[in-house]
Amino acid sequence: MSRRDPNSAKPLGPIPQGFEAIDGELAIGGRKVSDLVDEAGDTPLFVYSRDMLDARMAALRAAMPDRLAIHYAVKANPRPEVIAHMATLVDGFDLASGGELAILQGVGIGSDHISFAGPGKRPREIRAAIEAGVTLNCESETEAARALEIGRKLGIQPKLAVRVNPDFDMRGSGMKMGGGAKQFGLDAERVPALIRHLIENGADWRGLHIYTGSQTLEADAVIETQGHVLDLAARIAREVGQACPVLNLGGGFGIPYFAGNEPLDIDAVGAALGERFADLPEELADTEMAIELGRYLVGEAGVYLTRIVDRKESHGDLFLITDGGLHHQLAASGNFGAVVRRNYPLVIASKFDAQPVEIANVVGCLCTPLDRLADKAELPRAEIGDLVAVFCAGAYGATASPMHFLGQGPAIEMLV
Amino acid sequence: MSRRDPNSAKPLGPIPQGFEAIDGELAIGGRKVSDLVDEAGDTPLFVYSRDMLDARMAALRAAMPDRLAIHYAVKANPRPEVIAHMATLVDGFDLASGGELAILQGVGIGSDHISFAGPGKRPREIRAAIEAGVTLNCESETEAARALEIGRKLGIQPKLAVRVNPDFDMRGSGMKMGGGAKQFGLDAERVPALIRHLIENGADWRGLHIYTGSQTLEADAVIETQGHVLDLAARIAREVGQACPVLNLGGGFGIPYFAGNEPLDIDAVGAALGERFADLPEELADTEMAIELGRYLVGEAGVYLTRIVDRKESHGDLFLITDGGLHHQLAASGNFGAVVRRNYPLVIASKFDAQPVEIANVVGCLCTPLDRLADKAELPRAEIGDLVAVFCAGAYGATASPMHFLGQGPAIEMLV
Repeated sequence: MSRRDPNSAKPLGPIPQGFEAIDGELAIGGRKVSDLVDEAGDTPLFVYSRDMLDARMAALRAAMPDRLAIHYAVKANPRPEVIAHMATLVDGFDLASGGELAILQGVGIGSDHISFAGPGKRPREIRAAIEAGVTLNCESETEAARALEIGRKLGIQPKLAVRVNPDFDMRGSGMKMGGGAKQFGLDAERVPALIRHLIENGADWRGLHIYTGSQTLEADAVIETQGHVLDLAARIAREVGQACPVLNLGGGFGIPYFAGNEPLDIDAVGAALGERFADLPEELADTEMAIELGRYLVGEAGVYLTRIVDRKESHGDLFLITDGGLHHQLAASGNFGAVVRRNYPLVIASKFDAQPVEIANVVGCLCTPLDRLADKAELPRAEIGDLVAVFCAGAYGATASPMHFLGQGPAIEMLV
Repeated sequence: MSRRDPNSAKPLGPIPQGFEAIDGELAIGGRKVSDLVDEAGDTPLFVYSRDMLDARMAALRAAMPDRLAIHYAVKANPRPEVIAHMATLVDGFDLASGGELAILQGVGIGSDHISFAGPGKRPREIRAAIEAGVTLNCESETEAARALEIGRKLGIQPKLAVRVNPDFDMRGSGMKMGGGAKQFGLDAERVPALIRHLIENGADWRGLHIYTGSQTLEADAVIETQGHVLDLAARIAREVGQACPVLNLGGGFGIPYFAGNEPLDIDAVGAALGERFADLPEELADTEMAIELGRYLVGEAGVYLTRIVDRKESHGDLFLITDGGLHHQLAASGNFGAVVRRNYPLVIASKFDAQPVEIANVVGCLCTPLDRLADKAELPRAEIGDLVAVFCAGAYGATASPMHFLGQGPAIEMLV
C-alpha cells in the first residue's frame, strides 16, 4: 500500500447520515454526482438536497414540542431556491441584513414571522424592515429610538422586539454570543426600561430575542441555556409588567464537522423543553416560543463538489489539486473562526465506496498555502478528473467565503 | 478621561507614511475623507491613492538595480482602475487565474511581460493564456504536458516557464511558499528534466519562477533568500545547459500591519541585489530579472472607510459599531491566515488629529463576534456618524473577504 502510513494520517470529519453510493459514486438525492455535475455543466458545484432538508425538519419537528416555532436563519444559506424550499417547512425567518430582506422579498415571502437582528443596522435597513412589517430586534437604545422615529415618519406602527445580551453564554458553543461585554443587544438589566419606553411610544412590542451561542453539540448545554433563557425572559417580562408576546430562544444547535464529534441529541433537548413549557410562569404562559436555526437545518444537506485537476508529489507527499478551494470553503480550509485546522468530512466522490489506500493532501487551486481542503487524509487512489466532495457545505459555504479571491468567482449552486 | 485605562488598551498598527490631516480630518490624495465619501455616495468605501502608488514605485525604483523588472501581482488588488494605473508604473503583471487574465484583457493590457502561476490551472485557463501569449509558469509535469498539447492544437508555440519549489523558504515570511512538501511548482531536482522536455517539444522556454514566501519585513531574510534563488536558478540553468531567459525572483516584501513592525529596508535589499547582479554566473548573465510584488506596491495606498452607526456600552466596555466589517476586511478582523488577532492601524478618520481619550472596540455590522476591526483601541471620542479608517487596505481587502456574507454585498471602490 503506497504512501500509506496510518500513523501520519489525520482523521476526516464524520460523513453526515443519508448519503449512499450508486455505481460506486456518491449520490445526492438519489442522483450520482457525475450526473449532477453534468447537469450543472461545471465544477465547483454546491448541491443542496431537498430530501435531506425535509428529513432534518421532520426529525426536528418530531423531537421538539408542538408549541415551538422553528425559524430559519437565512444567513446560513441565502440561496433563493433554498429559501423557497425552507418556506414550505419552517414557521418563520430570521434576517441579519437588509440584503437578506431583499432576497426574501425576491422569493415572494410575506412579512409574518420574520425578524431582523444585527448590531449595525443602517437607517435604510430599519426603514425597509418597518415598511415590510418585519419585527426588528433592537440592539440598543439608539437603534430603538431610530426605529420609533422612522415608524412615526412612515405612519407605521413598528414591530419591535428587544435583543438581550444575557449574563450567561452557551457552554460548549463554538461561538459565544452572550456572557460579558458584547456588541449584540442590550445588557439584560437595561432591557425592561427600553421595553417600557417602546410601549409608551406606541410600538408593537414583539418580545425578546436571546441568542447565546452557536454550534453546540452538547444537549446538556443547550438544555441548561434554554432554561436560563426562559428564566431571564420571565424575569424581564415580570419587571415590565406585561406578558412576553414572542420569545426567540436563539439557536446554537451544532452539526458534527470533525472526527470525534457526535450529533446533538435533539430528543433530549426537545423533551427538556417540553417539560419547561408544561410549567411556565404567567408571563410566558401564552408566549409564542421560537428557535432560530441556520446551520442545523441546512448544513448537512449541502455538498461541495470539486474536480481534481492535478495529482503530484512533492518531497514524498501527495497533493490532489482541485478546481475549488477556500474561495468557496473558507471554513473547511480552517481559515474562518478556527484556532486549529481540522479536516472536514471529505471523500473522493467518484470512488465513494472504495477503500483508502494512500495519504493525500487535498488542496484548492489558489496560489496560497492556506488553500487546503484536507490535510494528510486517508483516501482511495484518486486520479485527475475524479470528483472530491466536501460535506457539511450547506451552511456558511458559498456566501461565507471570499468568492472573488484570486479572480475565481462564484461556484454553481443547485437544489436537487 | 473616561474609560481610559492605558494598561488595558491593545496597540494599533502603525499608520503608513504619507497621510495628513485637513481641517482635522484624514485626507487621502489631498482630499478629506468626508468629501471622498460624499463623492462615492455611501460607505463602506475603499479609497486607493494614485499619489501613494506613484511614490511607492518611485522609492522602489530608486532602491532597486536598474536591471530589475518590477511586476505587479494582480491578486493583491484586481480593481480595473488600479490595474490601469499600475500599467503606467510597472514592467509586467503576474496572474493567478484565468479570471485575472480576463480583467487584464478588459483593461486593454497586452500580453508582454505577463505570467500566470497557480497550482490548479484548468485546461481552459491554460488555453486562454496561450492564446493571449502569456507566459505560463508550469507547476507540474502534467500541467506542462497539457500546455504543450494545447499549444499544438492551437498552432501556437507556448511560452512556458517552470515554477520551482525550492528546498529553502524565506526566513521570517508571513506565509511560506517553499521549503518542504508544497503544492506549488516542481521540487527543484525535477526541474532540469522538465525544461529539457519543454525545449525538445518546441516550447518557448521562458525561464524560472521561484517564489519562497510573502510578507517579510526583514531585509536580511530577503537578501539571503534572493541569493539562494539566484544560486538555484544558475544551478538549474547549468544542468539544463542553457542560459536562463527570465528569472522571476518572487516577491515577499512585507508592509507593517502591527504595532512594533518596522518597514522593510528596501535600500539594503536593492544594494545587495545590485552586488549580486554585478557578479552573475554565465547562465544568468543576460537573464531578464524580475520581482513580483502585490501587497508591497498597493497595500499601504488603500484605506477602508466605514461609518459609525451605533455607539454603545456593554458591561462597561465601549463598542463603536460600523457599517463595514469582516465582509470587506477579513484579514483585519484577524480571521484570515492569522493565529493571534492583532489590531491593524485604524483611526477615527473624521477626528484624525484628535488625541485619544477612551478605549473602544470597533466592530462591524455583522451578527458574529468574529467581526472586530479593533480590539480595545485608544481612540478620540467618536460619535455616530463619524468615519473610521482602516489602513493597509489596498491589498487583499475587497476580494480577499466574503463580501456576500450575511447579505451585505461589495463596498464601493475608488481610485483618487
